[in-house]
Amino acid sequence: MTKNKKVLCFISADFEDLELWYPKLRLEESGYTVDLAGEKKGVTYKGKYGVPATSDVSWDDVDYKSYSGLLIPGGWAPDKLRRFDKVLEITRYMAEHNKPIGQICHAGWVLASAEVLNGRKVTSTPGIKDDLRHAGAEWVNQPVVVDGNLVSGRWPKDLPYYTKAFIDLLDERE
Amino acid sequence: MTKNKKVLCFISADFEDLELWYPKLRLEESGYTVDLAGEKKGVTYKGKYGVPATSDVSWDDVDYKSYSGLLIPGGWAPDKLRRFDKVLEITRYMAEHNKPIGQICHAGWVLASAEVLNGRKVTSTPGIKDDLRHAGAEWVNQPVVVDGNLVSGRWPKDLPYYTKAFIDLLDERE
Repeated sequence: MTKNKKVLCFISADFEDLELWYPKLRLEESGYTVDLAGEKKGVTYKGKYGVPATSDVSWDDVDYKSYSGLLIPGGWAPDKLRRFDKVLEITRYMAEHNKPIGQICHAGWVLASAEVLNGRKVTSTPGIKDDLRHAGAEWVNQPVVVDGNLVSGRWPKDLPYYTKAFIDLLDERE
Repeated sequence: MTKNKKVLCFISADFEDLELWYPKLRLEESGYTVDLAGEKKGVTYKGKYGVPATSDVSWDDVDYKSYSGLLIPGGWAPDKLRRFDKVLEITRYMAEHNKPIGQICHAGWVLASAEVLNGRKVTSTPGIKDDLRHAGAEWVNQPVVVDGNLVSGRWPKDLPYYTKAFIDLLDERE
């Protein structure tokens, strides 16, 4: 096996508990490692409901170019994440290098701030559809949308479809 | 497709959030329906950390014989679940009819009270290993144990292995 089965996942406070944990555990089932990247390494954040998760790496130090893809959970974490230049730099790198990016619910805010949505087809929580349209995206209301390297979902009940599509894309690319 | 891809999952307050939701969503990915059975139908319970889930059916009314398997989440819910005669009746029915039963963390308490562990090999949170041994089980410390129709895991980080083994067993039996 020469595959580099590593995925980076952003983390900050008030992530949507299932939107972080379901893809992380599901990718592990498929043999991937998911490293949680926060502002600092080793910090335990609580999800919106209180499920904890600890950052494995700091996004300032991590060799993000060595990862095969990027996951961005929803909840309120994206409102914090989009304020960090490094988060936007990593997001742009993944977009420009055509690496799979999974984003669900409110995660689209990070892509909007990274200016990588122009002309792309995506879904999200309906709450931010106008932000995504204003960033240049075509917004559709579906459980999962795959447009090139971008995989998006709307909310936790889409997780089975969204996560499967993200893994299928990673498997094809590797 | 003539398969009956339906699984029953017990729910009560303070279930372990990921131990209920990860298998539920993962089974949906594989085309199964997971019905949450509580004391009453339509009640929203909060997990240990606060993630909500709503019972689809009452265990008193549900036609449990029509289901292909049974899931029991951990957390503190099993301490409540084991007090209900109907929960134990359903658990015994599944055990006696050799239908797959998935139980993780503290869920083994329900099987201990249902008196279906004698001579069976299982794992669980180490906290209840003596209760399972006293109920007649052989306790081992592994991420997942499959003994006939019984699939068991220890804690949330075992979910990728535990859930995969449970689904593989269901797929074989159907």
